[in-house]
Amino acid sequence: MNKVNLAEKFSRFSDHWSPKIVGELNGQQVKLVKLLGAFVWHHHENEDELFLVVKGRLRMELRDRVVEIDPGEFLIVPCGVEHRPVAEEEVHVLLFEPASTLNTGNVHGERTVETLERI
Amino acid sequence: MNKVNLAEKFSRFSDHWSPKIVGELNGQQVKLVKLLGAFVWHHHENEDELFLVVKGRLRMELRDRVVEIDPGEFLIVPCGVEHRPVAEEEVHVLLFEPASTLNTGNVHGERTVETLERI
Repeated sequence: MNKVNLAEKFSRFSDHWSPKIVGELNGQQVKLVKLLGAFVWHHHENEDELFLVVKGRLRMELRDRVVEIDPGEFLIVPCGVEHRPVAEEEVHVLLFEPASTLNTGNVHGERTVETLERI
Repeated sequence: MNKVNLAEKFSRFSDHWSPKIVGELNGQQVKLVKLLGAFVWHHHENEDELFLVVKGRLRMELRDRVVEIDPGEFLIVPCGVEHRPVAEEEVHVLLFEPASTLNTGNVHGERTVETLERI
């Protein structure tokens, strides 16, 4: 039961699209991830997903519109909603989501991370 | 499904110890709260609680120690653990916890907020 410093945790890794677990509560996980470039279109069958931007600008593409998310802002993407995160420059994001959430949702591919590291 | 800007939401209220709901996902809620002074000792029977400090310094008193939490840091207080938040100067906090969480946990009193406002 120690406090977590986000900047310190972000300094521990440099890879992109691979969320790291930094906290767990009530069956949910807090994850940190660095994004760069465009991800795959996907949705999550059962999990709502919260993206809180810590650094950079996250462009969240939805099928009908785009939401630009700046530091100090968050977006909740409900389950079933297709989305594609895009980061023109590196973005640091905090995720809140159920422990069962797979990063690529319904799309299994080379970017799927099955086992997340705890840092 | 709109993004939430934390600073804008914090600008909408000025009262202390009364969490406002700014997001919901997976049976959990994201709440914002302003703290000033010392709260009551309490614990939550079934809910783990995450405190992410956005502004100011939060002093979280536990029965065996104290954790000082600065902006960009969070602490998860597991269910059953007695705690008392103290803010010598005003602190802005983001909470992530189950929708069922009562602010004063097991202690019902004048500081208990039964119905939270959504902002």
